[in-house]
Amino acid sequence: MKAEIIAVNSHLLRGQVANENARFLARELAPLGISINRSTILKDDAEDLKEALELAKKHSDLIVITGGLGPDKNDITKKALSEYLDVPLVLDNETQNRIISYHQNSGLTMPEYNQLQAMILMNSTLLENVTGLAAGFLYMQEDTTYILLPGPFDELKPMFLEQAYPLIVEELLDRPIFKTKKYSVYGLTLAQLNDRLSPLIQYEGNPFVGIYFEKDEAEIQITARASTEKEAEKRLNKTAKKVKEHIGDYIYGKDEKRLAHVVKQLLKEQGKKITAAESLTGGSFLDVISGEPESSEIFEGGVVTYSEHIKHNVLKVTTETLEKHGVVSPQCAIEMAENARHLFEADLAISLTGVAGPSSLEGEIPGTVWIGLAQEGKETFAKKFHFGYKRDRNRRNSVLSALNLARLTLLEEPIEDQVFLETKDEQ
Amino acid sequence: MKAEIIAVNSHLLRGQVANENARFLARELAPLGISINRSTILKDDAEDLKEALELAKKHSDLIVITGGLGPDKNDITKKALSEYLDVPLVLDNETQNRIISYHQNSGLTMPEYNQLQAMILMNSTLLENVTGLAAGFLYMQEDTTYILLPGPFDELKPMFLEQAYPLIVEELLDRPIFKTKKYSVYGLTLAQLNDRLSPLIQYEGNPFVGIYFEKDEAEIQITARASTEKEAEKRLNKTAKKVKEHIGDYIYGKDEKRLAHVVKQLLKEQGKKITAAESLTGGSFLDVISGEPESSEIFEGGVVTYSEHIKHNVLKVTTETLEKHGVVSPQCAIEMAENARHLFEADLAISLTGVAGPSSLEGEIPGTVWIGLAQEGKETFAKKFHFGYKRDRNRRNSVLSALNLARLTLLEEPIEDQVFLETKDEQ
Repeated sequence: MKAEIIAVNSHLLRGQVANENARFLARELAPLGISINRSTILKDDAEDLKEALELAKKHSDLIVITGGLGPDKNDITKKALSEYLDVPLVLDNETQNRIISYHQNSGLTMPEYNQLQAMILMNSTLLENVTGLAAGFLYMQEDTTYILLPGPFDELKPMFLEQAYPLIVEELLDRPIFKTKKYSVYGLTLAQLNDRLSPLIQYEGNPFVGIYFEKDEAEIQITARASTEKEAEKRLNKTAKKVKEHIGDYIYGKDEKRLAHVVKQLLKEQGKKITAAESLTGGSFLDVISGEPESSEIFEGGVVTYSEHIKHNVLKVTTETLEKHGVVSPQCAIEMAENARHLFEADLAISLTGVAGPSSLEGEIPGTVWIGLAQEGKETFAKKFHFGYKRDRNRRNSVLSALNLARLTLLEEPIEDQVFLETKDEQ
Repeated sequence: MKAEIIAVNSHLLRGQVANENARFLARELAPLGISINRSTILKDDAEDLKEALELAKKHSDLIVITGGLGPDKNDITKKALSEYLDVPLVLDNETQNRIISYHQNSGLTMPEYNQLQAMILMNSTLLENVTGLAAGFLYMQEDTTYILLPGPFDELKPMFLEQAYPLIVEELLDRPIFKTKKYSVYGLTLAQLNDRLSPLIQYEGNPFVGIYFEKDEAEIQITARASTEKEAEKRLNKTAKKVKEHIGDYIYGKDEKRLAHVVKQLLKEQGKKITAAESLTGGSFLDVISGEPESSEIFEGGVVTYSEHIKHNVLKVTTETLEKHGVVSPQCAIEMAENARHLFEADLAISLTGVAGPSSLEGEIPGTVWIGLAQEGKETFAKKFHFGYKRDRNRRNSVLSALNLARLTLLEEPIEDQVFLETKDEQ
């Protein structure tokens, strides 16, 4: 089955707002075995939409149209589709009642074209909007299925997942059973991942095996479909095993859990608390940790010691270390981690010190970073990293590497190239 | 003049990577008076591209095609365009030499189809790729102009700005003079901005007046064009004045400077340093401040005191304040700001304490936030904010509001609804 996504939205077209819808829909449809043929953004113009529909019908079985369902005179989607298919629009009473009571309760004036939001094609299946007002619908004509969804992402997402998705599976796909595994990956570029997984990747096969990239984290999704649970499970596991053989060392989580979330979960399970003393990352690590909901269970605070002076005055890094070894050193990283652990009474403390760039520091090039890790009852260590020349990327990669060190430590996995103070002093 | 953007990229189409190109190009073209008709993402398929070109030619004078210029057999863009226009591809020798020496110097194997990257249409104008290998070009046939750009954003952006843009102005637009002003805005929603500026906004007029949204910050761009510098300047200033009359209070910067950057610049000019003590925002404020290049001139460190215990132990917030007023209080915000200012020896200290959500705290609903501000020689104050129910948004809005308070303070602008400790105690 082939699909096409058409967004009717002059704002999007002009780049006024970011486009989240098309990416979300593509990621949801492909694992179902529905490949995306084309994705188009149109301005709010009925003739343009009709022309795009004509083209889409030639190539695709499913046409998903987003946006233009609102109460404004520029919202042309429903009317244009009605004219194109020659099927009248009818009022959905339940939606209309919701719109009226919403305006009564909120004291807002009903817009002139408010009824437009409650209209659906005659004999279509209503897709209720639980987070907004405009109704969506699914309509079939001849061999083509049309799905209309609202433009705002926080309305489109629940409408698609809760209402359109089950209808697609039931009415368009003979109700297959889907089984999915998602692996989060850190430490491989897109090219390296493609290379390692190339015999397994398939965006149109069964199982579906796809790679998605967000900043510097990748996600592998495997979705198997079959007519029974057992068969789907079997297919899924067979492919998952092969994926792990190829990139097992780089997988840090399953089911959409991102690195910070994995660390939070491990801390929670082990009843431990984390803190950090940050230099070059200036609060990014603490920000990511505290960004997790319920982080108060695993986090009480931390410190940013950006200058040498504050490293000494607030965090009590010794003058000897600062003068003899400098801030881009394992000694500094180790003292920062140990002192932060005591100051914030945590079980685990991370420290980050190094050169974010664009300038060099203490003769070290941008991207040189020492990460320290102190934990109760174990010897504190530091590890050296080399990233690149870009400031933002160095900060982001430092945080991800620190999270990964915390993860490996909590899992009691081996960590390569640890530097301990004794080892260093003996040299 | 009307334009269409066609991306040839199966990765984009499948949502594997984020789409930055189309938004960037739309934002660059519209102010030139070139309105965007349609934006399409296609898979790597020559027939699909030819069909899209046929459609685009019917509606647009300028067709910008991105992606598919690489050395892979899936990179079909150049060959498909050559066939469609019936114009042969020729080798650009300089590009070819660069490709060969790149592979020799890096020790990498030349891909089989590497020559594809150095091909351009006969009689087209070369667009050199200064950050990558694949050449782009501009070609005119009858009334249509075709511009080919590489897919990776860090190659496309400089090629467009440095080479395509001047050619467009010179060859397609009779060399008008452009004058642009950009205003950053905080504190108005997209709807409120549209409302206030509705008589002025025009995406196809002269001056161009457009609104762009990124997270919760907006940017207004005004671009005037004329045949002389003086006339363009005059038109620009006339419209800029009107924009300021409507939303002057919400403008915090010009020329693409974001709020954190504006604060950094003000601190730098005044030779001041900033610090922060963060609770609900958990390091986000420090992260944003230290994220600015050269932030070491204005920032030495700060603290995250997420728990009550750490607020008391590390930041010395008094037991009396914590027990009598709680952490969601002006008293707590004021003590946090003052103590942070002394601990980190800063001129200005921000504190953030409140309820991020999803749970309530001390009977206060999510989104209730107190921000404190301490500065040398002035009385410390706190200000109460109410955001919404969403955790991430509350954290982000808290940071933006804190930056804005710092900005207003540095500018010695009046700040409404300040709460001082004496005032509060008298009540």
